[in-house]
Amino acid sequence: MTSRFGRLFSITTFGESHGGGVGVVVDGCPAGHAFALEPIQAQLDRRRPGQSALTSPRDEKDRVEVLSGLDPDTGRTLGTSIALLVRNENQKSKDYGNLARLYRPSHADFTYEAKYGLRAVPGGGRASARETIGRVAAGALAEQLLETLAQVSIVAWVSSVADIEAPLPDESTISRELVDQNDVRCPDPAAAQRMIEAIEAARKDRDSVGGVIRCVVRNVPVGLGEPVFDKLTADLAKAMLSLPATRGFEVGEGFAATRMRGSQHNDPYSFEAGRVRAKDNRSGGIQGGISNGEPLRFAVAFKPVATIFKAQDTVTREGEAVRFEAKGRHDPCVLPRAVPMVEAMTALVLIDHVLRQRAARL
Amino acid sequence: MTSRFGRLFSITTFGESHGGGVGVVVDGCPAGHAFALEPIQAQLDRRRPGQSALTSPRDEKDRVEVLSGLDPDTGRTLGTSIALLVRNENQKSKDYGNLARLYRPSHADFTYEAKYGLRAVPGGGRASARETIGRVAAGALAEQLLETLAQVSIVAWVSSVADIEAPLPDESTISRELVDQNDVRCPDPAAAQRMIEAIEAARKDRDSVGGVIRCVVRNVPVGLGEPVFDKLTADLAKAMLSLPATRGFEVGEGFAATRMRGSQHNDPYSFEAGRVRAKDNRSGGIQGGISNGEPLRFAVAFKPVATIFKAQDTVTREGEAVRFEAKGRHDPCVLPRAVPMVEAMTALVLIDHVLRQRAARL
Amino acid sequence: MTSRFGRLFSITTFGESHGGGVGVVVDGCPAGHAFALEPIQAQLDRRRPGQSALTSPRDEKDRVEVLSGLDPDTGRTLGTSIALLVRNENQKSKDYGNLARLYRPSHADFTYEAKYGLRAVPGGGRASARETIGRVAAGALAEQLLETLAQVSIVAWVSSVADIEAPLPDESTISRELVDQNDVRCPDPAAAQRMIEAIEAARKDRDSVGGVIRCVVRNVPVGLGEPVFDKLTADLAKAMLSLPATRGFEVGEGFAATRMRGSQHNDPYSFEAGRVRAKDNRSGGIQGGISNGEPLRFAVAFKPVATIFKAQDTVTREGEAVRFEAKGRHDPCVLPRAVPMVEAMTALVLIDHVLRQRAARL
Amino acid sequence: MTSRFGRLFSITTFGESHGGGVGVVVDGCPAGHAFALEPIQAQLDRRRPGQSALTSPRDEKDRVEVLSGLDPDTGRTLGTSIALLVRNENQKSKDYGNLARLYRPSHADFTYEAKYGLRAVPGGGRASARETIGRVAAGALAEQLLETLAQVSIVAWVSSVADIEAPLPDESTISRELVDQNDVRCPDPAAAQRMIEAIEAARKDRDSVGGVIRCVVRNVPVGLGEPVFDKLTADLAKAMLSLPATRGFEVGEGFAATRMRGSQHNDPYSFEAGRVRAKDNRSGGIQGGISNGEPLRFAVAFKPVATIFKAQDTVTREGEAVRFEAKGRHDPCVLPRAVPMVEAMTALVLIDHVLRQRAARL
Repeated sequence: MTSRFGRLFSITTFGESHGGGVGVVVDGCPAGHAFALEPIQAQLDRRRPGQSALTSPRDEKDRVEVLSGLDPDTGRTLGTSIALLVRNENQKSKDYGNLARLYRPSHADFTYEAKYGLRAVPGGGRASARETIGRVAAGALAEQLLETLAQVSIVAWVSSVADIEAPLPDESTISRELVDQNDVRCPDPAAAQRMIEAIEAARKDRDSVGGVIRCVVRNVPVGLGEPVFDKLTADLAKAMLSLPATRGFEVGEGFAATRMRGSQHNDPYSFEAGRVRAKDNRSGGIQGGISNGEPLRFAVAFKPVATIFKAQDTVTREGEAVRFEAKGRHDPCVLPRAVPMVEAMTALVLIDHVLRQRAARL
Repeated sequence: MTSRFGRLFSITTFGESHGGGVGVVVDGCPAGHAFALEPIQAQLDRRRPGQSALTSPRDEKDRVEVLSGLDPDTGRTLGTSIALLVRNENQKSKDYGNLARLYRPSHADFTYEAKYGLRAVPGGGRASARETIGRVAAGALAEQLLETLAQVSIVAWVSSVADIEAPLPDESTISRELVDQNDVRCPDPAAAQRMIEAIEAARKDRDSVGGVIRCVVRNVPVGLGEPVFDKLTADLAKAMLSLPATRGFEVGEGFAATRMRGSQHNDPYSFEAGRVRAKDNRSGGIQGGISNGEPLRFAVAFKPVATIFKAQDTVTREGEAVRFEAKGRHDPCVLPRAVPMVEAMTALVLIDHVLRQRAARL
Repeated sequence: MTSRFGRLFSITTFGESHGGGVGVVVDGCPAGHAFALEPIQAQLDRRRPGQSALTSPRDEKDRVEVLSGLDPDTGRTLGTSIALLVRNENQKSKDYGNLARLYRPSHADFTYEAKYGLRAVPGGGRASARETIGRVAAGALAEQLLETLAQVSIVAWVSSVADIEAPLPDESTISRELVDQNDVRCPDPAAAQRMIEAIEAARKDRDSVGGVIRCVVRNVPVGLGEPVFDKLTADLAKAMLSLPATRGFEVGEGFAATRMRGSQHNDPYSFEAGRVRAKDNRSGGIQGGISNGEPLRFAVAFKPVATIFKAQDTVTREGEAVRFEAKGRHDPCVLPRAVPMVEAMTALVLIDHVLRQRAARL
Repeated sequence: MTSRFGRLFSITTFGESHGGGVGVVVDGCPAGHAFALEPIQAQLDRRRPGQSALTSPRDEKDRVEVLSGLDPDTGRTLGTSIALLVRNENQKSKDYGNLARLYRPSHADFTYEAKYGLRAVPGGGRASARETIGRVAAGALAEQLLETLAQVSIVAWVSSVADIEAPLPDESTISRELVDQNDVRCPDPAAAQRMIEAIEAARKDRDSVGGVIRCVVRNVPVGLGEPVFDKLTADLAKAMLSLPATRGFEVGEGFAATRMRGSQHNDPYSFEAGRVRAKDNRSGGIQGGISNGEPLRFAVAFKPVATIFKAQDTVTREGEAVRFEAKGRHDPCVLPRAVPMVEAMTALVLIDHVLRQRAARL
């Protein structure tokens, strides 16, 4: 499966940076949902380049069209496959120069060619960040279902850029509105300011920076996740590491947990308001791979983007050593635009497990 | 799928700590492989409790039996499903006391019951570490295939315990022999000694410790991994986070990459001995989700095990607050025994992608 | 997938005629089911050779053992994978003679070897009818769930042998008790007697005969089946054609429908006892691939078994022309023993769609 | 999965009769194939209504557009997902009248609503024959690959209409050119003439007729098909029974085999031109579920279409008894248009097994 994700709420994405368009077919969306296009477009807009001074100034409209799956009379989902399409625009036919021959360092040029025997040169083809449009669109649909079914609320934000770490926000009140108060999508204004400066400094240096995105999910139903391989932790890890430029994932206390004693890390149970609670929530909402009803809490590491404007050493397909310097418009930091991607992948994992859970009991 | 992993080399594991046995059915193992039982038993022995003073003294024999899938004349794999069984032993029928009613903190008791409406009380049922026997057996078979097909070599080791971090070993020479020179499976003798002391200190304190396991894979074929969701990074992340007690995963420079500039992190390409190389290998052998032929390099975070002998607060199924103190024999640190689990999951991911890659080109 | 069936209630079977045993791992059986071993053993007994003068006199006990998946305290299903094992017995090591070199006509010897490069010679290996033990065991478990959830009732019977066709029984009252009143499992006593004579005549002629099995399913919930590829018709067709020696499948009026006019074939709807009915039921309970609540009705064609005791022309692996004459004990007609196989595959299809249907609506 | 087919060459179709369009995403098409649009359009044209006096006069253009998956420089497949789109046209917004309330007899109106709680009324929504456009497009792509890889040749034809049966053609020379010599797609001119008369008679009677399509596949590689559940017979049966209006499937001698003796039905092997042959080919090219290199040979039963212009009894959603009479333009016989659908589904099954076979051996 080159481009498929999910078992019951299952998506297949398609599209390169150049060509007819990019999109997704959602197979397994339950029938009867009052489909809304606006929230999907809204998340695509948050993902889109050119939103702010921080991101690349390409003017991609990325208007999404629904091709199938809705009842023409009620607008509700029919239960059958839903196809969403975003047309490609702004494609200038251009001379790639030696781009077709050389392998850009730490891009997918070499590995795609090693895998497939060929690759699409313009815009990186399927390795373009436009690949994520289908994910974000389907994820925004998944979010609608999660809200309808269980008032699940997913919020991601930029937690660090380069060596600037924002303090952890209040997990019970963090919202997209708070996150979107600045261009870098960090809810701490002071840290956000320093992050913006770091990104601008990198841009001036013709370089790039990475960072960490954190995510919290509230109102997660208990019992999501399978006991062995498809643990909720495992499926979230896969979802996040499938995003471009990711290098790490941690849940709950993450790597810091490795330095704690069991007596420090264990979450004692209590009983409150009629339900079992693990309020310390060092487990990040997942125990034995299954959600316990506390908020999910995890972090994703993004490396500095590979595209920089400094000259670098590389080789051509034929093995000739050459120097390469990127041209064009590229973000020195992808993190603000990756926030909706993290949210989308989270929603896709959760809705799938919500549907799977329906078959878990007699 | 409660207990299934892999698409072409696909395993289904089964078994609880109590009952007839644990095991695995491997579906999709290619035909014609000269199956060897010894390497499978060897990895099971490394996983087994009671190996050393460090691990719990239960004497589980864990002898594996092949039920199906081998040609009786040649001992080769037939191409059809291979069933491997390890019988359960050493099951004393005992009085669980209040174990059946209460939820052990940070165990899967509560979440299993929330998911399924019931749970197996003795030994934790399917949440027992015995669940990993099927993985380790199938992974050891996968390793044989990887060695035969491409001389792939997988070595994992304990890199840190609590706050003791071993220096990184030479990735080009690290071997299982080096790793197994001490009970803690850390190839650095000095660090190993301090780790052993930390584990003993935790045991004395009736507590537990966690740590980090690192893994290196040499001779990885180029081109493994799918471009979008089933990136090699993503599938490794899922594989690792499906192991019990894991809290994080990172590949290449991991979270440290988030503090580097692109110009520092990018791997320049060179051409040597007839092939394209990315020798700095900060990418950890994977670019754009696809292997580039450099060694894979990743780390997995394990929390301190939940079972401790200190009294803890918890609740019963009925919501009554109680104190709980574990009894019996339990390791204060699972990391030495988790080394073959990490290797097994790595092998399972890789063999699956090796087979998938055969369909990638015309 | 060499040996896997079903998406949510998903089974993996294993085992050859010789070797440790045959069996099945059921992954996805809902938790909380009051598992009963007797109905599983009962269907295995109906499948077993040596039941009557009609079937081969080999005395296979085929006692099934549960390895995993049940709560030791309540006997209920835990929700996790259930492994069922039947040990092989009665294996004499023997001299295969030239069986290892030649291809028995219309057996799987040649095609297995062409596919895998090798094959298990004794007993036909995985192509042995013992392969169906895992299906029958899992199907009998599926039946229990279907009965519990919706009082679904599945009855198959031998409808024709060679050119002897039994009249269609009353679909509303046909039962396994009626079917099992004679050795040939045909509920019409007169036809049954002639079938038995035809089978005995074939045996005397060192030859074999085929026939048709029909199946009716009552109390099928409405709404089972997917609209496009996984139509209930399609999944039943696949399930039946996966059984050894099958050559055809038809549902409702089947091939006879091709000679009817639309006005003859269409089922008018009526409204009775609070529900929509299509009582003429020429559709066989499925319209647009989805169950309509009327009884399912379909037929499966079984060819005469390939094993006959007449001398036949064939070739060796090396291309040498030879004569082959089967030895040993073999049924001249598999149909009586195939009845529980048809029932099992039907149950497996239905329970899977029952679980899938739970995710079809918001 | 509502709309997915295939494991490695895996398609997801989408689209209703009304809405943005219909199409398919092919996931798993190998890289490097010299993609040709014309053969895809050609099969779509054979599927299209309005081709002849026999078929409905609606003028659907059904021009297919490639949205993704091709290298812009070479036109070759990139190895990643290929999206194909056919826009809907000719949609008059109209008053459905009581169509929205009543259930057309033997259509999917009632079962869709029972399954999903709602249905798309105009044109039957996803139950429209337009659903098959995605299959035919993807199947035509699969055919290109099969031809390139192994010169596989797939030819289907109308073998009977109502009670008119054409004599079997020469399987070694039958071709699409021969089949397309008349509007009914029967290669026997005399039978074709009588079929046309039967179809016209049905039209005059405001009624419909069914029939049988046969298919032959030449140059099938040996070894395709899995040994247990995914037998080639089983997967073809599923593929065919997933087509609208199908009621039966048989392979080789089919139901007629049930009346033969084993000595009549068995195919003796011979050795010719360096390969093992089963030239009598009563097995229809498949033994033990696996292809033996002889031509595949099977038949598919199509019932008379449900849409007739005679008045019929039915009920409304609310249970009111009403009379229903179809309006508009509808074929009295779908068989000529179903020929490319049978070919497409055959190609999809075969290419999937060709790719799967690559993982069958070490």
